Amino acid sequence: MSNQLQQIISDTQTSLRSNPELGKTIFNSRSALQEGFHSEVNLRQHQITVDEPLTLGGTDQGPNPVELILAALGTCQEITYRAYATALGIPLESVSVELEGELDLRGFFAVNDQVRAGYQQIKGTVRLQSNASAEKLQQLRDVVNAHCPVLDILTNPVPVKLDLRIVHN
Amino acid sequence: MSNQLQQIISDTQTSLRSNPELGKTIFNSRSALQEGFHSEVNLRQHQITVDEPLTLGGTDQGPNPVELILAALGTCQEITYRAYATALGIPLESVSVELEGELDLRGFFAVNDQVRAGYQQIKGTVRLQSNASAEKLQQLRDVVNAHCPVLDILTNPVPVKLDLRIVHN
Repeated sequence: MSNQLQQIISDTQTSLRSNPELGKTIFNSRSALQEGFHSEVNLRQHQITVDEPLTLGGTDQGPNPVELILAALGTCQEITYRAYATALGIPLESVSVELEGELDLRGFFAVNDQVRAGYQQIKGTVRLQSNASAEKLQQLRDVVNAHCPVLDILTNPVPVKLDLRIVHN
Repeated sequence: MSNQLQQIISDTQTSLRSNPELGKTIFNSRSALQEGFHSEVNLRQHQITVDEPLTLGGTDQGPNPVELILAALGTCQEITYRAYATALGIPLESVSVELEGELDLRGFFAVNDQVRAGYQQIKGTVRLQSNASAEKLQQLRDVVNAHCPVLDILTNPVPVKLDLRIVHN
């Protein structure tokens, strides 16, 4: 598995160096609100159910959107650790992530316009099991944090453009 | 449902005005990488399976982390539309969102350090079915975009602090 993955990474890098235009990738989502705050999302052939907890007016049929943000960050860190450990030949037996996101509901509920609607901060712990030296693993961490797509998305602004289409009954 | 939701929103606003400290909320995630790029995430009692597509070295058992980002934004928009339409008494029969995120893989694969690892942009369409006037729905859009937690998280930087814990074999 590890050799195979190393080969995929190395082949992809070679291919992207010779053909930079192959790097451009589009990801898509389609979602539709059902009753209340429950929504069903399609991501290629995959489905996710999203909802709000009872305390926020939902029926708790799934995680809520800001929990998905934490899931995205945790898994992106893990995948990026495995990819770069493999590419750099650093042994990595396991990687797991615990995160907490701190949010002040006064933002979403428009109670105080000085309070942002999203996370004020996200903090957490990345646990690595490895027999590599601490120094080597800290170097790995630096490479991972410089190339983790979701960490970049959260810590730097992403331009978002949403068009509104209105269908009158 | 709509009256009940309106009551929940109004009660929450009243409560947060008198007790601002109640606004502070913590969301959590715990995830652990399995074989390859496949990870299992726990968000309270909910589970999500994350993986990469075959073309990116995964086994495609679930959406990937950057697809979760799109799912988070689409569903957060929908929930915020329903919440504010309800709070403001604007009729809203349905809301759905299609998104596309554009990413250049040269960032993740460290082929070009000038290329960011995350989305270069996200664009999409929000579809509302309603018999309210276009003007009223555009006002609704402005209120939604000012209070949608995930839109804020993506368009403005979030401080992220990750500690590294190393377990030697």
